[in-house]
Amino acid sequence: MARKVKSDAPILAVDLGGTKIMVALVSSSGQVIARERTPTPAGQGPVAVIDRLVSTLERLLAEKNMDVAQLHSISMAVAGAIDSIRGLVTLSPNLPGWRDVPLRDMVAARLGIRTFLINDASAAALGEHQFGAGRGVRDVVLLTVGTGIGGGIIIDGRLYPGASGAAGEMGHMTIDINGPKCPCGNTGCLEMLASGTAIAREAIRCAERGQPTSLTKMVSGKLAEITAEKVYAAAREGDSVAIRVINTAATYLGVGLVNLVNIFNPEMIIIGGGVAKMGGLLLEPARQVVRDRAFVLPARVAKIVPAQLDDEAGVLGAAAFAFQQ
Amino acid sequence: MARKVKSDAPILAVDLGGTKIMVALVSSSGQVIARERTPTPAGQGPVAVIDRLVSTLERLLAEKNMDVAQLHSISMAVAGAIDSIRGLVTLSPNLPGWRDVPLRDMVAARLGIRTFLINDASAAALGEHQFGAGRGVRDVVLLTVGTGIGGGIIIDGRLYPGASGAAGEMGHMTIDINGPKCPCGNTGCLEMLASGTAIAREAIRCAERGQPTSLTKMVSGKLAEITAEKVYAAAREGDSVAIRVINTAATYLGVGLVNLVNIFNPEMIIIGGGVAKMGGLLLEPARQVVRDRAFVLPARVAKIVPAQLDDEAGVLGAAAFAFQQ
Repeated sequence: MARKVKSDAPILAVDLGGTKIMVALVSSSGQVIARERTPTPAGQGPVAVIDRLVSTLERLLAEKNMDVAQLHSISMAVAGAIDSIRGLVTLSPNLPGWRDVPLRDMVAARLGIRTFLINDASAAALGEHQFGAGRGVRDVVLLTVGTGIGGGIIIDGRLYPGASGAAGEMGHMTIDINGPKCPCGNTGCLEMLASGTAIAREAIRCAERGQPTSLTKMVSGKLAEITAEKVYAAAREGDSVAIRVINTAATYLGVGLVNLVNIFNPEMIIIGGGVAKMGGLLLEPARQVVRDRAFVLPARVAKIVPAQLDDEAGVLGAAAFAFQQ
Repeated sequence: MARKVKSDAPILAVDLGGTKIMVALVSSSGQVIARERTPTPAGQGPVAVIDRLVSTLERLLAEKNMDVAQLHSISMAVAGAIDSIRGLVTLSPNLPGWRDVPLRDMVAARLGIRTFLINDASAAALGEHQFGAGRGVRDVVLLTVGTGIGGGIIIDGRLYPGASGAAGEMGHMTIDINGPKCPCGNTGCLEMLASGTAIAREAIRCAERGQPTSLTKMVSGKLAEITAEKVYAAAREGDSVAIRVINTAATYLGVGLVNLVNIFNPEMIIIGGGVAKMGGLLLEPARQVVRDRAFVLPARVAKIVPAQLDDEAGVLGAAAFAFQQ
């Protein structure tokens, strides 16, 4: 759009995931002025999701007595394979039916404002760099460890997009060539060994084999209901199976971090995502693997720290992305 | 030095390795005007090596009737852990006795000219980017597959140094968490599985086990004399053990490339070093692994090509580094 926007006007930022849509009005200094969450009607397909998204955006603006003309732009972080340049959601595992959806231009057309689109892990990296744990750090690698493992790379203070905006898939590096097949087509991916899904899967397997664990009682014997969160809860109460499962995942995570330390020699690696909430129980063994195995100089330099922005990383990162354009 | 140098004056470039010193006069357009090779007296320690280096530089200048004042600078590529910022050879596996040697300032003082120092794989990446296979490509990852596996990363047309100039150790990413221990302290490193050393080691093991191979005759039964070059020679003549050994290394190399493709989404990966001279026999199976296992979009984008500069990559890259300063 040719219209001149004020560079310090707020951004209407979106974090669109498979279960919830978060919308936030973000100031140029990274303050969340207002926010709203709504469930994603993912099962109803792209049109229903976009309708819900647009109405949520309009409602938030109405609540703040604002008009789109007062905004810098709209910026959206979406989980999945995102083509930032063309504004497409190429594919999103948690949004069934989405395939090459021109989300950016659809939202721009409906609201009449300049709009941006970015992958959610890239957004989290930018958010942590601009407003969170990575403030003032030049080169940062972010890993989001949740259901899956994603990532984003900040080089010289800017998001490194790669040739087609797909860089940062650190969850899909092979660390065990003889390991389990990953749905991505690769083998022994970090995500298969250190994600929340991997932690739950391994705990279920231990319980199925009859290893004595409080998890069995916690889920009333319905072992399929064991989640990474429950494993963490059991571990905090001293359950030895749960502790061992988390420790194994942390070791795998550490091996992934060694690779990143040796390749990037980064000032900082930020660990975000739901599983990172396990804190030291996950991070301490992972850091120890880095100290034991990575090259001495880069291992000494790289600070391995938890993310700070929690569930606002997506909207803050989407905002940071738009402010950088 | 405060003295103003012409930005298009030639550079006296050095590639210092454990067996040979190469010195070249390089024009600003990347032409090698003159060059000279001399053996590295590595066993005699740093002082002898630096004496030999300086006398070779002076001889080349004298031959061309030139004075240091006519040079842009001196720039040196050295194998090992290099602190580019402070100009130190921190450690070099092939240069015994070198430990925190201030090579840059020693050469600068003896010849009275601005001098630069860079790791040889970083130099090779810059050289290929400026003058070789990667000309005009924005984001390039270079792997040098030789005795070991090193690498260099070009982002946005510039060498990515990392926080302490140690980035690019792609040879030391774990791809087999249960694999062999690496002298670097890590486990199942790419270098342990796909380098020339790994190829020779595996071929020796096959021959020791009595597998029928022409290699046994080629080295007159002295199996320890089997090298990657000999394995390649045997493979070209159809030796099935040699072919299988190279194919296995190529598969490992491919898994390493998958990781780099998924992480960097690079426009190009350049494979240099002695082992890369195996050409299609190595690269074709590795490319197939990338097609089979990496994410579709980045796999389609990433050109995986052999290096073009051969043994001049080091001097040309050192020159490129100095011209960029």
